[in-house]
Amino acid sequence: MKIGDLAVLIKGILEGDDGIDVTSLSGISTARVGDLTFAVDENKLSQAEKSQSSCVLTTPSMRISSKPLIRVNNPKLAFLISYRILYSEEPNTSFIHPSAAVASSVKFGNNVYIGAQVSIERHVTIGDNVIIEGGCVIKENCFIGASCHLYPRVVLYQNSILKDNVILHAGVVVGCDGFGYVKDQGVIYKFPQLGKVIIEENVEIGANTSIDRGSLDDTVIGANSKIDNLCHIAHNVKIGRNVIMAAQCGIAGGTVIGDDVTMSGQIAVIDNVTIGRNTTIGGQSGIIGNIDEGAVLWGSPAKPLAQAKKQMAVLSWLTKNFSSLTKMVREKA
Amino acid sequence: MKIGDLAVLIKGILEGDDGIDVTSLSGISTARVGDLTFAVDENKLSQAEKSQSSCVLTTPSMRISSKPLIRVNNPKLAFLISYRILYSEEPNTSFIHPSAAVASSVKFGNNVYIGAQVSIERHVTIGDNVIIEGGCVIKENCFIGASCHLYPRVVLYQNSILKDNVILHAGVVVGCDGFGYVKDQGVIYKFPQLGKVIIEENVEIGANTSIDRGSLDDTVIGANSKIDNLCHIAHNVKIGRNVIMAAQCGIAGGTVIGDDVTMSGQIAVIDNVTIGRNTTIGGQSGIIGNIDEGAVLWGSPAKPLAQAKKQMAVLSWLTKNFSSLTKMVREKA
Amino acid sequence: MKIGDLAVLIKGILEGDDGIDVTSLSGISTARVGDLTFAVDENKLSQAEKSQSSCVLTTPSMRISSKPLIRVNNPKLAFLISYRILYSEEPNTSFIHPSAAVASSVKFGNNVYIGAQVSIERHVTIGDNVIIEGGCVIKENCFIGASCHLYPRVVLYQNSILKDNVILHAGVVVGCDGFGYVKDQGVIYKFPQLGKVIIEENVEIGANTSIDRGSLDDTVIGANSKIDNLCHIAHNVKIGRNVIMAAQCGIAGGTVIGDDVTMSGQIAVIDNVTIGRNTTIGGQSGIIGNIDEGAVLWGSPAKPLAQAKKQMAVLSWLTKNFSSLTKMVREKA
Repeated sequence: MKIGDLAVLIKGILEGDDGIDVTSLSGISTARVGDLTFAVDENKLSQAEKSQSSCVLTTPSMRISSKPLIRVNNPKLAFLISYRILYSEEPNTSFIHPSAAVASSVKFGNNVYIGAQVSIERHVTIGDNVIIEGGCVIKENCFIGASCHLYPRVVLYQNSILKDNVILHAGVVVGCDGFGYVKDQGVIYKFPQLGKVIIEENVEIGANTSIDRGSLDDTVIGANSKIDNLCHIAHNVKIGRNVIMAAQCGIAGGTVIGDDVTMSGQIAVIDNVTIGRNTTIGGQSGIIGNIDEGAVLWGSPAKPLAQAKKQMAVLSWLTKNFSSLTKMVREKA
Repeated sequence: MKIGDLAVLIKGILEGDDGIDVTSLSGISTARVGDLTFAVDENKLSQAEKSQSSCVLTTPSMRISSKPLIRVNNPKLAFLISYRILYSEEPNTSFIHPSAAVASSVKFGNNVYIGAQVSIERHVTIGDNVIIEGGCVIKENCFIGASCHLYPRVVLYQNSILKDNVILHAGVVVGCDGFGYVKDQGVIYKFPQLGKVIIEENVEIGANTSIDRGSLDDTVIGANSKIDNLCHIAHNVKIGRNVIMAAQCGIAGGTVIGDDVTMSGQIAVIDNVTIGRNTTIGGQSGIIGNIDEGAVLWGSPAKPLAQAKKQMAVLSWLTKNFSSLTKMVREKA
Repeated sequence: MKIGDLAVLIKGILEGDDGIDVTSLSGISTARVGDLTFAVDENKLSQAEKSQSSCVLTTPSMRISSKPLIRVNNPKLAFLISYRILYSEEPNTSFIHPSAAVASSVKFGNNVYIGAQVSIERHVTIGDNVIIEGGCVIKENCFIGASCHLYPRVVLYQNSILKDNVILHAGVVVGCDGFGYVKDQGVIYKFPQLGKVIIEENVEIGANTSIDRGSLDDTVIGANSKIDNLCHIAHNVKIGRNVIMAAQCGIAGGTVIGDDVTMSGQIAVIDNVTIGRNTTIGGQSGIIGNIDEGAVLWGSPAKPLAQAKKQMAVLSWLTKNFSSLTKMVREKA
């Protein structure tokens, strides 16, 4: 693509020869001829000028350069939009690897790619432009919306629903049985897990994360939410829209997480609580009750961030002044 | 099935037309004609009456209804028993998907189902009524007891033993090498992992959980225990019977967990300790020593629950009264 | 192998008939005729003497025995070296299972084993003596060095590089997209993940661990490092040499971990910090800043071990003496 054409598409202002080609994107340190890169400060711009990159995305306020520049308000955002323009991952033809095992009742949209060793069971519906990579197992009655991308070895249990543009990374398991048992007279019985999983539009889920099917109700992951690697989402959990959940979080059964919640890694949330919208939770926190909208929390159990920090400071001070404290208490006694 | 016949099988008392058919089960909110549901209080019963469900399991004390009822002491338990009556998952014929790769020396029981893309290596023995779903890999010399159900993409390393009725969810890894190394003059050597994994009757293990083989001894999961998703069971661990372990727990090498222990999620247990029977441990706890029978613990490191709560209350109080405390200490100094 | 020959190879001193055969290794409790075992104290030696084992590795200072002994300075180390002598896992011939799907452009070294249902995409290079077990998926342009062992169902995303002697256990995912998003006016955009993963020599990685590809830079795991099951390594992380990381640790993006760091299980490390060489970190710790070389840390957030222990002791004492404290504060007020 000519950088002149790219500049028009991303609504930037080009400084340099509009006939220069860009064929790829990269960071500054690995940029080669034909690569587009980006620079958000003068220092990065200097590095970009020394690199082989053919064009640099930068801001309107940055100095003039010998390199071709495209000036935009948010170079990082323009970089990712350029990525989507230059690399369309969607297949432009249909392909089913001959080693795939596909039931005859599966319905395919246009331009679907099915990789090697994939297994798709009966009554599955697959939308347009879907990619299902090597070794995935799709059980019966699943619905996969348009432009979904399932990386290798994803498993969908029966009746799972993926809406459009869902990305599931390798090893993700969707729709496994929830952890539901009834203890009666010392005997543990498995409770039926009859619900399903619904994953809404534009959700991305990281490698080896597992999402349990609902018990009687459904488990739902709201549109645009992003869940990182190795998370555990239990049965009947409802995750809202635009939720960001970092790696290794665990959400116990029936819990509701509001829209726009941001969670750092290794957080645990107890079952059957509600976390209000716009909440922000620090890493390794433990949530053991309902949380109001907009809270900023940290600790296990979690408390408001300022209180968590103050408690730590108080404990430090008490430790430092421990001999005075013990003396006072002993004298008093 | 006629609800009259079902009532007999679950030892309930039917009120209504014994010729009504039930074909499926569901929660109240999604119940359709032909569905059995359950109601444990008057409010749920009212909802069930408004639903399309054909029959409701409820208790002897609940009011009379226009809906057909089956009265039992424990409706939830009766519901799951009904599930097992209505849905038998066991295959009633043998099936090996043509894409499966099965060594000639594998021994099959009756009514075994082998899904697509499965790989079974030599000298494996598979009992009656076993289901091995798509993409599983069973390495040599494994033994799989009757009525086991391996969901897609389970891996059993060599010599693993599953007794009867074991359920392994998608992505479970059984028998991988333990984390055993010997450091000598700054060099890290891998110690051989020669033991195996034994999983006893009626165990269920959640998606993407991994269980290491023993180093010199074996790793054992006791009968009826239930382990949730994404847990880590290290080499030589012995887990007792009826243990409930929620998601993302990690048990380090050589540790022994007694019968009837209940663990919430994200607990870590150090290596080579013993947790006594009937212990209950709260979420995110860290166990760093031996634990007596019947303890109720919480915290990292874990302490008796009452003590953990009191410590939290004390720290809160000290934080609140911090200015008075500092003043006292300063005046004293 | 004759124990006389073994003694020469491991540089030990044999006491007993050098013509005795050893064919296998085992722990003392399971030792049979033909097994080599080891004993590090008099008690273990007594047990070994009662076992059927054919030869015992022990130290120079231990008493004389009726069993054939090989005396070495470090019996455990000699045991693992004997294991490597007796069991060579390397294939001595090439084998590709007929069910494997291998692109025509894949380059193979000598003596490569490819198991059932494996998928290898185009332009992959595989070194000598490599084992790739059932169900692995290797995406395009990967490089797999000599003597690597990929257990079942490993996934390598495109461009991943494994140097020699790398062991990846079942379910490992290498090169999945990092968790990188740009939020602009309430919309979450996915940032391109253009880097790759480089895993250096002699690294072993446990079951179901996931390692993200770099975003613009690469993710690197240094030589000889050992990572346990279910760990999460985010994009652009650099892990040094000889690092030991126990199960379920999570390392956020861009963090650098120095050589010879030892980490217990369930540790979380925040993004973009540096952990100095030779640091030792206790289980469940949370690292939220840079760490100096040689530190010994514990807690969430982590502090020097001695300080963490003192804080716990202080909080215990304050809890015990809470009534005196409250009285003092009240009187003062």
